[in-house]
Amino acid sequence: MAKTRPTHNAGLGEKYLDESKRLINKDGSFNLKRTGNPFQARSLYQWLTAISWPTFLGLMLLLYIFVNALFACGYLVIGIEQLSGVNQQTPRFWSAFYFSAQTLTTVGYGAMAPVGAWASMLAALEAFSGLTGFALVTGLLYGRFSKPSAKFLFSNNALIAPYKDGQSLQCRLVNVRSNIMMEVEANVLLSTLDKENGHRQYYNLNLETNFIQFFPLNWTLVHPLTEDSPLNKCSLESLENLDAEILIRVKGYDDTFGQTVHVRHSYKYNEIIHGARFQKVYESDAEGNTLLALNKIHDYELLD
Amino acid sequence: MAKTRPTHNAGLGEKYLDESKRLINKDGSFNLKRTGNPFQARSLYQWLTAISWPTFLGLMLLLYIFVNALFACGYLVIGIEQLSGVNQQTPRFWSAFYFSAQTLTTVGYGAMAPVGAWASMLAALEAFSGLTGFALVTGLLYGRFSKPSAKFLFSNNALIAPYKDGQSLQCRLVNVRSNIMMEVEANVLLSTLDKENGHRQYYNLNLETNFIQFFPLNWTLVHPLTEDSPLNKCSLESLENLDAEILIRVKGYDDTFGQTVHVRHSYKYNEIIHGARFQKVYESDAEGNTLLALNKIHDYELLD
Amino acid sequence: MAKTRPTHNAGLGEKYLDESKRLINKDGSFNLKRTGNPFQARSLYQWLTAISWPTFLGLMLLLYIFVNALFACGYLVIGIEQLSGVNQQTPRFWSAFYFSAQTLTTVGYGAMAPVGAWASMLAALEAFSGLTGFALVTGLLYGRFSKPSAKFLFSNNALIAPYKDGQSLQCRLVNVRSNIMMEVEANVLLSTLDKENGHRQYYNLNLETNFIQFFPLNWTLVHPLTEDSPLNKCSLESLENLDAEILIRVKGYDDTFGQTVHVRHSYKYNEIIHGARFQKVYESDAEGNTLLALNKIHDYELLD
Amino acid sequence: MAKTRPTHNAGLGEKYLDESKRLINKDGSFNLKRTGNPFQARSLYQWLTAISWPTFLGLMLLLYIFVNALFACGYLVIGIEQLSGVNQQTPRFWSAFYFSAQTLTTVGYGAMAPVGAWASMLAALEAFSGLTGFALVTGLLYGRFSKPSAKFLFSNNALIAPYKDGQSLQCRLVNVRSNIMMEVEANVLLSTLDKENGHRQYYNLNLETNFIQFFPLNWTLVHPLTEDSPLNKCSLESLENLDAEILIRVKGYDDTFGQTVHVRHSYKYNEIIHGARFQKVYESDAEGNTLLALNKIHDYELLD
Repeated sequence: MAKTRPTHNAGLGEKYLDESKRLINKDGSFNLKRTGNPFQARSLYQWLTAISWPTFLGLMLLLYIFVNALFACGYLVIGIEQLSGVNQQTPRFWSAFYFSAQTLTTVGYGAMAPVGAWASMLAALEAFSGLTGFALVTGLLYGRFSKPSAKFLFSNNALIAPYKDGQSLQCRLVNVRSNIMMEVEANVLLSTLDKENGHRQYYNLNLETNFIQFFPLNWTLVHPLTEDSPLNKCSLESLENLDAEILIRVKGYDDTFGQTVHVRHSYKYNEIIHGARFQKVYESDAEGNTLLALNKIHDYELLD
Repeated sequence: MAKTRPTHNAGLGEKYLDESKRLINKDGSFNLKRTGNPFQARSLYQWLTAISWPTFLGLMLLLYIFVNALFACGYLVIGIEQLSGVNQQTPRFWSAFYFSAQTLTTVGYGAMAPVGAWASMLAALEAFSGLTGFALVTGLLYGRFSKPSAKFLFSNNALIAPYKDGQSLQCRLVNVRSNIMMEVEANVLLSTLDKENGHRQYYNLNLETNFIQFFPLNWTLVHPLTEDSPLNKCSLESLENLDAEILIRVKGYDDTFGQTVHVRHSYKYNEIIHGARFQKVYESDAEGNTLLALNKIHDYELLD
Repeated sequence: MAKTRPTHNAGLGEKYLDESKRLINKDGSFNLKRTGNPFQARSLYQWLTAISWPTFLGLMLLLYIFVNALFACGYLVIGIEQLSGVNQQTPRFWSAFYFSAQTLTTVGYGAMAPVGAWASMLAALEAFSGLTGFALVTGLLYGRFSKPSAKFLFSNNALIAPYKDGQSLQCRLVNVRSNIMMEVEANVLLSTLDKENGHRQYYNLNLETNFIQFFPLNWTLVHPLTEDSPLNKCSLESLENLDAEILIRVKGYDDTFGQTVHVRHSYKYNEIIHGARFQKVYESDAEGNTLLALNKIHDYELLD
Repeated sequence: MAKTRPTHNAGLGEKYLDESKRLINKDGSFNLKRTGNPFQARSLYQWLTAISWPTFLGLMLLLYIFVNALFACGYLVIGIEQLSGVNQQTPRFWSAFYFSAQTLTTVGYGAMAPVGAWASMLAALEAFSGLTGFALVTGLLYGRFSKPSAKFLFSNNALIAPYKDGQSLQCRLVNVRSNIMMEVEANVLLSTLDKENGHRQYYNLNLETNFIQFFPLNWTLVHPLTEDSPLNKCSLESLENLDAEILIRVKGYDDTFGQTVHVRHSYKYNEIIHGARFQKVYESDAEGNTLLALNKIHDYELLD
C-alpha cells in the first residue's frame, strides 16, 4: 500500500468496528447501536414518519379502535340511558362503542344521541379529540410525504477497470426516480484496518470528476490508481487483509422537490472485481430516443 | 472552432443523444426515457403533485365515487335492512351508496343510520377511512402548493450581438412571477457533436457576469466571443455541422417562498441569430415608474 | 468622488429608474411595475399567502357563502320536496341554503335530509367538495404559517460617523423577533446617477465586518471612508447631485424555523446624517441582565 | 495569555454582559432580554410551535370551551326555542353549549337542530368557524412537527487534556437522536473580559478537525494549546480572572429530515477541568456490534 496520509475528517472512529462487519449498511445507515438512552433515541414523530405504510395505517386503525373503546367505557360508566336511540338487542358495550365511533369521526348520525348532561359533555370532548387526532394524522401524513424521495441505485460491484494508460477503481450510480437531479457531488473514502493494533484509518480517494452539473443519466465514479493513490498496487489479497471498505457519499439537489439529497453507499473488499469493465447502460430506440436501462446498471464484463 | 478543452463535469454522456434531438426540452426536462424499472420511476406522491389541477381533482372525485361504491356493496352484503330510514322507492344499491357517501364524508344526516351490529361496524370503519383519506388529500394539496413556483422566461432566440470591440453570444431572461429573486447565478455550456465518431463534447462558455445580487428586471447573459471562446469564429454553418446546443442553467433564491430555484434552458443552433441586438424591455410611464414589458423579452433587431 | 470601478453584478439596470425615486422601497420590494402579462405575475397560491389575515379570512367566508348559495340553487332546481324536514315557514331558498351549509361543513344534523335520488347525489358531491375545500384551506393556512418570519429593523438614518482616525458610513439593524439568527452576512452597494447621460452605476462598499456568527444584539454595519471608498470625500451636496442611494442586503440563518432569511433595505441621500454617532441600544438592569431596547435603534447624537 | 488578535465577527458586543453571567445558556439561547417592543418579539405562530405539548393541547381545549360558550350565548340571545329537541330538564345554557359543541365539531347528531332562521344562520357560521379553526390547528401541529429535531448532547465539562507532545482543550458531543447527521462543522470562540475597562474580547480557537463527513459516533473537539493559541499557558486562575467562556457552534445536515441543524453550547471557566482525559464512550458487544453508550459521554478520568 502506497504511503499516503490518512484523513481525519471522516468522523468514524479508529476503533469503530470489528473486522468483517460493514461500516455502512446496504440501506445507507451506519452499523451501530445506541445504549444508555433508549427512549430519546428517536422522536415519536420521526418513528411514525419512518415506518412502512402498512404499519403506519395499521397503527392508526388500532389507535382508533383503542380510543373508541376507551370513550365507550366512559359512556358505560356514565350510564347508557343517557344516550337516546340505543338498540336494546345490541350488547351495551357495542352500542356505546358505535356511538363513540360516530362521535370521534364526527359522523354523528343522531340515531343515537346524547341526552343527559354528562354524556353530552363527554361527547363534546370526544368530538374535539377526534378532530385534533385527525389533525395530528394529517401532519404525520404530510411529514411522511415530504421526506426526501430521490433514490440512487449503485452498481452491485466496484471494478478495478482500465483507465487511460493505467487502472482505476470504478463504480456507477443512477437516479432511479425521474426526479431531476442537479449539482451532484461525490466523495469517496477508503477505510482500512490495521489488524495488529486494531486501528482503523480513512483515506480520501480522489475522483477524476467529483461534481456534475446535471444527472439525467448514469454517473461512473472513477478513481485513477495513480502513484499517490492509497490503493496503488493493492492486490485483492491485500484488500482483504486490510478489511478494506470503500465508503461513498453523494449529495445533489433534487429540483423536483427543492431538496438537497444525501446518499451513502459502501463496497466491502469482496465486492470489488479486479480486471473488469462496465457495460453500456443506455441505448437508442428506433426513433433516436435515448433509453436508460436501469436494470443494466450492474452489468460488467471480465477482461483478460 | 478554437482549441479549448472540453469540460468533464456536464454529467451528460458522450453518446447521450442522436443528432437533431434536443438535449434539454423546452420545459427544462431532459430528452431521455427510462426502461427496466417503469414502476419505481416515479413515486405516487410525486406523480400526484405533478399532474394538472383538473386531472388531480378529477382523480380525487373518481376515487371518492369508487370507494363509496365499494362500501355500498359492503352494506348490501351485510343487508340493507341493517340501515334504518331507507327509502323503499330508491334502488337498494343507490340507498347504500348515498348512506356510504354520508358516512365517508362524515356528514351523517341520520335520516339513514346503521342499526345492526355489522352495519355499525362497517360505518365506523368507513368514517375512519374517510377522515384518513381526506387527511391524505390535505397532505397532497400542500405538497402541490409548496413546490417551487418561480418561473423564468427566456428569449426565444440567442443572438450573436456586438459587444465592446467584438462580438458576443447573448440571451436574456426575466422572472415572470412577482416573486423577489436574489443571488441569481448562471452557467452556460456548449454541446457539440463530432459527426465522424458520434462523440459529444461539452465546453464551458464564460459569462461577463455570472452572478447578480438582485433580479427585479431582465438579465442579459453575455458570453464574449474572445479568442479563447470555444465559439470564436464559428459561422452559422459550422454550428449546424457541430449540431451545437447551448445549455443554460440558472439558479437563484426565491425570497418570497424561501426556496432555491433551478431552471434549465437550451438553444439549438437554429435558434441562434447572427448579427442582431436585443431591444429595450423596460420603459418609464408618465409618473416616472419603471414598467417591465414581459412580452418584449423576445424582441430583437437585425443589424447590417 | 474617488475613482473606483463600478460593479456589474448588482442586477439593476443602468437606466433602471428616474431621479428621485427609490430603487428599494421601505418594505424591501423593488420600485417596479410589470406589464404585458398581468395574469401570470402572481400565482393564486402566492397571493393567498401574502394577503393580510382579515382579508384572507374574509375571502374564505365570502367563498363559503357563495358556494353555499350555489348549491342551494341546485337543490331548488332539483326541487325542495326532495329534502325531508323542511320548515314550511322559512323561504325555500333559505331552507336550501341552510341545508347546503349543513352539508358543505359535514355537520349534517339530519333534521333536514335528502330523500330523493338527485338531492342525495348532489349532497354527496357537496360534502366531498366541502372536505376538499377545507383541505385546500388547511394547505393555504400552513403556507401562510411557514413563510419566513424573521423581521429586521434598520435605523431610520445612516450616519457619517467618526471611525478610528477617519470617518465611516454606518447604519445599524436589530432582529425584532426573538428568533435566534446565526451566520448573518451583509452586503452594501452605492447606487449613483450620472445626470448628464442618465446612467446609473453601482459600487460595492466594503464593510469592516460583513459576517457575524451570532446575532442576538444589534449589528452596526461600518463602511470606513478610506481612500479607495467610492464615498471618499463626498459632501452632502455631491450625494444629492449623484441621486445617491445606499442598497443593503442582509441574509442570515433563522435557527428557530430552519430557514435562510433575506432582507433588503436602502437609504436615500437625504436619509444620511453627516457628523453624528449612534447611541447605545442595550443596557443592564439591576440584576445584571442585558436589556436590548429596540425602540432606541434609531437614536443618534450630532457631533460638533 | 498569548498575544493573539481578537476576532470581530462574533456578533456579540464588547459590553454584552456583566461578569459571572453566561453568554450562552444551557439550552442554547442567549442571555438577553428585549425591551421596547414586547408585542412583536414573538409571532403568535412561533410561540404556539415552541410551547410544550401539554401546554399546547391544554390551550387548544380551553379555546374550544371558550368558543363553544361564546356561540352558546349567541343561541341563547337568539332564543333557545329556535332549536328543536332541547331537553327541558337541562339548564338552557348547557343545552345551547352542547348544541354549540355538536356544531363546532360538525358532529351534528341532529337530536338538537336549528329550526329558526337566525339559529340556522349562526349554526352555518359556527360550523364554518369550526372547520377553519381545526384547519389552523392542523397547520400548527405540522409546524410543531417539522421543526428541526436533532439534539446534540455535550459533555458536562471541557478538559485540558494531553495531546501529542503538549496539551489541548477538549470537549465532546454526541447525536442523541438516531437521525443520520452528515457534514458536521464546529466553530469555537473564547470570550474574555478585561475587568479593568469592562470590555469583552472574542478569540477564535482553531480545531485540529473542524469538519467531519459523517457523525454516527461521538465527536471530540480538540483545540491544541500551541504557541499561538489564545489559551496558551493559561492557568485555571487566569481563566477565572478573565471570566472566560468557551462558545461552541456546531452545524450539520440532518439527512433524516433534510434540514440543516445549528447547535450552540458554552463552557464557563469553572466547567473546564485541568489535567483530565475523556473515557471511552463506545464498546463492542459479544457479537462484535458497536454500542454507543450515551450516558458515558460525560465521563473523564483525572491524570496526575
